[in-house]
Amino acid sequence: MTFRVPGGFRYAGIACGIKKSGKDDLALVIADRPCAAAGVYTTNLIHAASIDWNRGLDPSRGMRGVVVNSGNANACTGDRGVADNARLASLAAAALDDDPRAFFVMSTGVIGHFLPMEKLEVGIPKVVAELAAGEEAFLRAATGIMTTDAFRKTASKQVEFRGGTVTIAGMCKGAGMIGPKMATMLAVVTTDAAIDSAELEAELRWAADRSFNCISVEGHMSTNDSLVLLASGLVPIAADERVRFREALVELCIELATLIPKDGEGAKHLIEIRVTGAADDTDARRIAEAIANSPLVKTAITGNDPNWGRIVSAAGYAGATFDPAVTRLVLCGRLLFDAGQPTAFDAADTSAAMRDSSTVTIDLSVGNGPGEARHWTSDLTVHYVEFNSEYTT
Amino acid sequence: MTFRVPGGFRYAGIACGIKKSGKDDLALVIADRPCAAAGVYTTNLIHAASIDWNRGLDPSRGMRGVVVNSGNANACTGDRGVADNARLASLAAAALDDDPRAFFVMSTGVIGHFLPMEKLEVGIPKVVAELAAGEEAFLRAATGIMTTDAFRKTASKQVEFRGGTVTIAGMCKGAGMIGPKMATMLAVVTTDAAIDSAELEAELRWAADRSFNCISVEGHMSTNDSLVLLASGLVPIAADERVRFREALVELCIELATLIPKDGEGAKHLIEIRVTGAADDTDARRIAEAIANSPLVKTAITGNDPNWGRIVSAAGYAGATFDPAVTRLVLCGRLLFDAGQPTAFDAADTSAAMRDSSTVTIDLSVGNGPGEARHWTSDLTVHYVEFNSEYTT
Repeated sequence: MTFRVPGGFRYAGIACGIKKSGKDDLALVIADRPCAAAGVYTTNLIHAASIDWNRGLDPSRGMRGVVVNSGNANACTGDRGVADNARLASLAAAALDDDPRAFFVMSTGVIGHFLPMEKLEVGIPKVVAELAAGEEAFLRAATGIMTTDAFRKTASKQVEFRGGTVTIAGMCKGAGMIGPKMATMLAVVTTDAAIDSAELEAELRWAADRSFNCISVEGHMSTNDSLVLLASGLVPIAADERVRFREALVELCIELATLIPKDGEGAKHLIEIRVTGAADDTDARRIAEAIANSPLVKTAITGNDPNWGRIVSAAGYAGATFDPAVTRLVLCGRLLFDAGQPTAFDAADTSAAMRDSSTVTIDLSVGNGPGEARHWTSDLTVHYVEFNSEYTT
Repeated sequence: MTFRVPGGFRYAGIACGIKKSGKDDLALVIADRPCAAAGVYTTNLIHAASIDWNRGLDPSRGMRGVVVNSGNANACTGDRGVADNARLASLAAAALDDDPRAFFVMSTGVIGHFLPMEKLEVGIPKVVAELAAGEEAFLRAATGIMTTDAFRKTASKQVEFRGGTVTIAGMCKGAGMIGPKMATMLAVVTTDAAIDSAELEAELRWAADRSFNCISVEGHMSTNDSLVLLASGLVPIAADERVRFREALVELCIELATLIPKDGEGAKHLIEIRVTGAADDTDARRIAEAIANSPLVKTAITGNDPNWGRIVSAAGYAGATFDPAVTRLVLCGRLLFDAGQPTAFDAADTSAAMRDSSTVTIDLSVGNGPGEARHWTSDLTVHYVEFNSEYTT
């Protein structure tokens, strides 16, 4: 599908010198006029100044946009970090002649360093001057929020409603420190749908729980996870059409979210884990997360090794209750473990199927209960270790 | 201290052909006469036949010993695995003219493969014939339980009591799939102290909670974790001396347990995490475990990188409550984060201290509460990934 962005917004991304590499590191997403908005954030106790700022905002009074810097997380920076964050919002507000509290702030990058405010003082008026509507500007903003990402992460979707065509477009970033509990790293989604802030928040939490909260790279929850949705309100949506908007939003969020483990630092495979038959969805999710966060499962998949004992043993310590005697595991479409017994599967064939799949699927059924979950993660390669051993030194 | 083993036991280890390498893979620890005993085991729902067998035993009626095979976990092997496990105990019982239910069984190795019973039928009488008292035989048994271990893991301790000198000697194995909840991998401890089975179990749980339950390599709980303590009862211990026995047992268990992450697959550093000031010990332990299980923390230490934001951010998502504004982090003796603010520390000096320490210490104080915990883990190196990508293929 052609990439489309909704009406009612302008976007920009520039390099202002936070990153030594000279790459883009400052982005803006701005609504033409005050709009409905919602956000969900990391639940990490140790979090960035931006998280407290965003949580303190009142989207019901109308928001103007999001200021994003990459290259510096502004986390664990104490009172000075809080002041620097407020200054970012004020600079954007001054340039756009609005209230600072109409602006979300997002920061990403290394923890524990102070923001280079002298660069941002110059950069914000500059990025405001670059604001433009349309796909090209959106993509430039999506570049501005990247850190260790190997590729830019965007998705868009259009749905026909009686009042017109609704467009939803999103950008996100992230490739490491991914183990979200409420949202992951940075994501900004814009839409032209007409939905108020309180309702948007409900939709966004529902979508985040089925997308950004179901991915991991190494399971380390970030200090800065933020997902914000802005709705310019140009296209009306009838009450009986809301479920279709919700479905479109979830699909878009899954598309965006799965780009993150697909780009997991050093990843060779995206791993899709589907758990069914659990007592409830919570148990299913616990099992999926235990599998996703096991370095033994992830390294086996790196090596295209159908060492399925690692998968079922991870399920066993997840904290969920199930009966091993009715448990069944299918890996890349091959049945490896059934009713508590190993099957006589073809290991070479299964290994070849893993090697040839960019997405390795794990289907684990643990009984006849109604609980199910999906989770996406990346495998664990030598490159992940090399990269993260050398990140700040 | 010289390595000493207690009286009242015989030991043996041989190669019976389970391992393709031809290395030792069958070991016995036998008491001269029925003795007091206790065991603690993995809490993984998916577990080996040996775990159910051992849990079903009644140590109060007197135990004779432990049969251990390495190279095959006999886990996820269904009814046939259960029968094979019972046969192992019966073979040992027949050779020693005792009841099968006087023998603990332990298995370790790959999950999901049936035990090669024809090799064990021949091997068990052979290992029984090798039984001998003393240090040399003990060390041979400790060799027989190894799998991916780079070195044999043993420890011994002697304590003077009014009734005589008590000796405690232990052997354990493990280098991967280490994230115990009740005990870890395989460990057998023998002592000549006179303590009954019920009391031994209380002492063993207390010691395991402060040693084997406080270590991890990658945090993946094994299907086979077993720690068994046998007491031959040769040396009486008075009631007021019990606390000294307990202390000696904990010290011995810590010495044994920390050998495991020290030999963590591919590890360059042992990491000792000490958390203080938490609301209670449970919170302190949650924080220590979250730090220990973060691949980002572990890779930073591999790279001698004082990237402390990874450590405090892991504490933040541990599920414990604390105030970041009074949190304080000391890494290898250097203060890096104090009262919610970064310090002006010397990164090059800290990195050199990490590089030059075989044990990297992390001291995190999160407040003024009484809660504290210690946890030991290994760093995460390229070699871990290489090794575990190529384990069965």
